[in-house]
Amino acid sequence: MSGFVSLVGAGPGDPDLLTLKAARRLAEADLVLYDGLVPAELLRLAPTARRFYVGKRSGRAGIEQETINKLMILEARKGRQIVRLKCGDPFVLGRGGEEALALSEAGVDFEVIPGISSALSAPALAGIPVTHRGLASAFLVVSGHAEGAYRPILESLAPGSATLVVLMGLANRTGVATVLLDRGWSPSVPAAILLGASTEASWTWTGSLADLGAAKTPERLSDLPGCLCVGEVVSVASKIFKSVVRDRPVQRSNRAGN
Amino acid sequence: MSGFVSLVGAGPGDPDLLTLKAARRLAEADLVLYDGLVPAELLRLAPTARRFYVGKRSGRAGIEQETINKLMILEARKGRQIVRLKCGDPFVLGRGGEEALALSEAGVDFEVIPGISSALSAPALAGIPVTHRGLASAFLVVSGHAEGAYRPILESLAPGSATLVVLMGLANRTGVATVLLDRGWSPSVPAAILLGASTEASWTWTGSLADLGAAKTPERLSDLPGCLCVGEVVSVASKIFKSVVRDRPVQRSNRAGN
Repeated sequence: MSGFVSLVGAGPGDPDLLTLKAARRLAEADLVLYDGLVPAELLRLAPTARRFYVGKRSGRAGIEQETINKLMILEARKGRQIVRLKCGDPFVLGRGGEEALALSEAGVDFEVIPGISSALSAPALAGIPVTHRGLASAFLVVSGHAEGAYRPILESLAPGSATLVVLMGLANRTGVATVLLDRGWSPSVPAAILLGASTEASWTWTGSLADLGAAKTPERLSDLPGCLCVGEVVSVASKIFKSVVRDRPVQRSNRAGN
Repeated sequence: MSGFVSLVGAGPGDPDLLTLKAARRLAEADLVLYDGLVPAELLRLAPTARRFYVGKRSGRAGIEQETINKLMILEARKGRQIVRLKCGDPFVLGRGGEEALALSEAGVDFEVIPGISSALSAPALAGIPVTHRGLASAFLVVSGHAEGAYRPILESLAPGSATLVVLMGLANRTGVATVLLDRGWSPSVPAAILLGASTEASWTWTGSLADLGAAKTPERLSDLPGCLCVGEVVSVASKIFKSVVRDRPVQRSNRAGN
């Protein structure tokens, strides 16, 4: 039996947002390689697999990409069914493309199973549709990790022409806001900070672009993944919920309109 | 028992790409309101529910949005558990925000269950990562339905600064390509047309931006949902598969490297 690798998106955090296909691959897996932020409940869906954490540990880097690639190739050649479990979607700022290339070059069978990306679901679960008739028919998702990555794009995009979602941009929110204001975005355009979307610890700040840079986030939540969202669509959240959504995502127990 | 509405993303077409949460809501539903392109297999996950098609029918429009909203509110007030099943993700060009607003204004309990958007999964399943180290750290998703929606954005965005995904843009691909070339995008930048992603009928064309406008798609596939993808990341697909992926998505039986 030949080995096989599934590059699987784990979704934004809520184990219930895994796909049916991903759940089946986990149930059949011999080996699961998982990143940080992958919810522990998902690993329980792979009861017979060896589980190997390859993400960052506090104070030191995670296992190098090259080593992860080699491990997948080695185990696949032994005939193992491998799930490479990545937060969100494997092809959205997740280095899934690099892993796919390495597997392909090594002649290892693999597939890609898309996951729910936090780029779309973090806003959605806070009541913010990234597109909305009359407000936005486009959205831009950009990494806020490095200024060199986001500055050229944000300096070109016409102000207000698309909803802006910045992943990994929490630390650089002042820089992001400054570039947008310099580009001519209105200081009053609504903005949001979304932390830990889809998890019980989720936390939302909404305000204006003028206040985004200096907005405070709780110290206790500093390890949660976060994203920024800027655009008129952010105002929809407060219309969906009379009180602005701050401490919880849209959920069953949340009486809309109260 | 009070009624409840789940605004659910059905994913791109493969029923296996539904989320666990969505599958559970379907199993418990009293009523499912579904759009065109929602796979028939998904409806079988709701065996006890009444099922009501609200999408377009050939030759005539679908049920009006206002009517769908009223129906959901009416049925929720009768205590029904309702699943509003929409292709892809309910908040990506799917009018989910409008439905959420209507439910909120009526005081009806609801939730949003994100789905796998074809904006990300159609490229992914053709071997195209929308972000890739060294090639793109951002992507723009835009509706190609109307020139007024895409032109201002595409005329501003710096050429090559982000991967471009155009949903509902198949008919306007000549217009989209012209705007990009006029803006200064290189005619040789790779481009793709992706039809019916995640389904057995999926079909992919890859070429250059210069050829995108005149690229022919098979007549028999004219009813499939399609998207355009433009950017250097499109070139990753042909490196993942030695032969360019044309008639099938990345899948288990597809021996990479052969």
